[in-house]
Amino acid sequence: MRLSYFLKRNKIHWILFGLLCIQSVYPLQAQQVNAERLEANLKKLSTFGKNALGGNDRVAFSDYDIEARAFLTTYLENLGLNVHTDAAGNLIARRSGKKKGAKPIAFGSHIDAVPNGGHYDGDVGVMGGLEVMETLIEKGIETDHPLELIVFSNEEGAIFGSRAMAGKIDQATLEVKTASGYTNGEGIVRVGGDPKKVFEVKRSSDELHAFLELHIEQGNVLHKNGLDIGVVEGIVGLKWWDVEILGLTNHAGTTPMNDRKDALIAASKFVLAVNEIVTGMEGAQVATVGRIEAFPGAPNVIPGKVIASLEIRDLNADKIKSIYTQIEQRAYAIGKETQTQFNFKPIDATAAPALTDERIQSVIRKNADRLGYTHKTMPSGAGHDAQDMAVITPTGMIFVPSVDGISHAPEEYSTPEAIAKGANVLLQSLLDLDKISFNP
Amino acid sequence: MRLSYFLKRNKIHWILFGLLCIQSVYPLQAQQVNAERLEANLKKLSTFGKNALGGNDRVAFSDYDIEARAFLTTYLENLGLNVHTDAAGNLIARRSGKKKGAKPIAFGSHIDAVPNGGHYDGDVGVMGGLEVMETLIEKGIETDHPLELIVFSNEEGAIFGSRAMAGKIDQATLEVKTASGYTNGEGIVRVGGDPKKVFEVKRSSDELHAFLELHIEQGNVLHKNGLDIGVVEGIVGLKWWDVEILGLTNHAGTTPMNDRKDALIAASKFVLAVNEIVTGMEGAQVATVGRIEAFPGAPNVIPGKVIASLEIRDLNADKIKSIYTQIEQRAYAIGKETQTQFNFKPIDATAAPALTDERIQSVIRKNADRLGYTHKTMPSGAGHDAQDMAVITPTGMIFVPSVDGISHAPEEYSTPEAIAKGANVLLQSLLDLDKISFNP
Repeated sequence: MRLSYFLKRNKIHWILFGLLCIQSVYPLQAQQVNAERLEANLKKLSTFGKNALGGNDRVAFSDYDIEARAFLTTYLENLGLNVHTDAAGNLIARRSGKKKGAKPIAFGSHIDAVPNGGHYDGDVGVMGGLEVMETLIEKGIETDHPLELIVFSNEEGAIFGSRAMAGKIDQATLEVKTASGYTNGEGIVRVGGDPKKVFEVKRSSDELHAFLELHIEQGNVLHKNGLDIGVVEGIVGLKWWDVEILGLTNHAGTTPMNDRKDALIAASKFVLAVNEIVTGMEGAQVATVGRIEAFPGAPNVIPGKVIASLEIRDLNADKIKSIYTQIEQRAYAIGKETQTQFNFKPIDATAAPALTDERIQSVIRKNADRLGYTHKTMPSGAGHDAQDMAVITPTGMIFVPSVDGISHAPEEYSTPEAIAKGANVLLQSLLDLDKISFNP
Repeated sequence: MRLSYFLKRNKIHWILFGLLCIQSVYPLQAQQVNAERLEANLKKLSTFGKNALGGNDRVAFSDYDIEARAFLTTYLENLGLNVHTDAAGNLIARRSGKKKGAKPIAFGSHIDAVPNGGHYDGDVGVMGGLEVMETLIEKGIETDHPLELIVFSNEEGAIFGSRAMAGKIDQATLEVKTASGYTNGEGIVRVGGDPKKVFEVKRSSDELHAFLELHIEQGNVLHKNGLDIGVVEGIVGLKWWDVEILGLTNHAGTTPMNDRKDALIAASKFVLAVNEIVTGMEGAQVATVGRIEAFPGAPNVIPGKVIASLEIRDLNADKIKSIYTQIEQRAYAIGKETQTQFNFKPIDATAAPALTDERIQSVIRKNADRLGYTHKTMPSGAGHDAQDMAVITPTGMIFVPSVDGISHAPEEYSTPEAIAKGANVLLQSLLDLDKISFNP
């Protein structure tokens, strides 16, 4: 039997065999990041702001922030990248592309932390992005599109830098005081920004090809279920209310139980009603009462007033609205039942839900599969720079597991292996996006 | 028909007629206080410490307290009474009795207020007592027993003066800081006391014949029901606890509803359970959660800890204990159900229930009837000097209505008519007690 005959006769089998080979060999063939270097660089970054409690105090615009930016700038310049800080204090490292006129692919996250925060949060996305840049340079892989690694300013305090890029800040935003003690306006000056030109930072919707953010999950879905990668379908929207409950302050000794208008009894029924309404429906919506205070607040005085907070989050803005309506109705019924009065005051901490691009979700899923990583498509319950970038460009977001779901605390942790997997998916997705045209 | 025959024949009718005459005429015959003078004196006292909000700031040991005591001392000395201040800062005005060796009948209350308190609270008992003294002197009514009008020191802050008299203070009590900014030890020096001799103020149980306190109700039972006089059957005991509820602090956006250990959900169930347990049983017991705080206390963080207060009051110490046991058991069940942990810490604000003397209760009831006043036998939900005096001598307490039950506030009010009725009952009860022997 001649080879040609054999091949012809077993054509289907050969095709299947070939596909099998590609399937199993590909993970080894795909370009991968240097996991050890990534781990070492993350560790180096964590030294800027590390405190005695084991946490990190690198709040935006602090001296630690400035020192860490200097370290990054030197590192990125040594890679031959063009590094600058825009007027909003975003640090941007740019690499040219091969194709003339191609729009940049941006990727990145932030390095500012909450006070006594952890060492992973935004750091993983920045150092993962830096590692992707270094891998590409090291391996001589050129992309058609220019690449921009962006270190956004003040994510924790106000999602400032990415909002500036999306054109969503105003004069009032500049005057908000941050955890550093400086206002946003003062803070960006400290890191090389310019309040006078900050509104020019806004990018129009055709300036970027796409945006990718790598980040820790900050929840326990991936870690608990032993999964490698979260394919973020969107960043949930959120709304906040101050809830005031008015009863009647009275002497706890001289007022019989049946003659009380106890605002804390009403508040307790409210807290349980919120929980019942939100858990009683299908979906991933969440609602939280995180703050509560009774007035006057003495053990021997019946509370005449309670102030509580209400937060609702979901990927769907209409659902948030409908949940709120249900909660409000129940609150009024509780008020009637307990002879108290409920007043809801919306708080200006509203964020609209931001959906990621479905084509990019597919690219991320495909690359996780190719690399042999398990994954789950999921919402992000926390806010991210990606939510504002999604307004101006097709955006994708990659989660890596947070051990025990802990975040914004010194105990925040993701394993070096998990982070390297995230960086590998970022690298491969970026290379795929380089070949995709989003405009049909 | 001769008169003697007529009288003989209709003996029973005459007796009944005579009784009827006494019954209807007696209220007019009974010695009564001078209501106008009492009202004027109360008004005069209220000027010491009256603030711009219409309330009174005459906290114990303040300059206002000192000025009011000077006013009272002059007034009482002008009545010919022997006035002195004991080592605990109690101002005592003494009138001799006719019977050699007879023990004094004491009566009085306090003139210190809570910050921005009202003008009635203890003032009514002190000025009512002063009016009783003045009425007796004016009308030339001498008693067998000596009389002591006592103005107790620092009732609002620590029930200090009466506790000193009952031998219930110690060195630590002297070091407690009061609302005036002075410690009890420093404060009593300011009003003429002496910390070195303060423990000598204690009176043994056979030093006094009886004690009577006139006071506003501070609740809404009498006013709401249109009653004149409260015959206090006892001052309820109270116990306080700090309740710590431990859950798990977590991100309100990234933690699914079914993966939370929300300490505020547990706390809300606890507050409602306390209410349910206490209202679900017979009796006048009350329990209150007056203070609550969630930690960290941000709208976007699931509370990992809640601190709340628990107060239980009842006339029966065993009942307080049994209510607490039920609440504790329910709390542990709630902890199990919500994956949280309840810790109860007793707070040193415990007061044992103090029962008044049943014979004195009868005397007060009888005199209210004789004067044509409506009355109700009831517990006092608030603490009073009488609760400590009850430890050393047969004690009685007379309540007058508080309009709308308001107390410890500028709006606190009792009508001049209501106060005069209380003073009349005090006067008549005192005269009756003068004739009663408590030792069979």
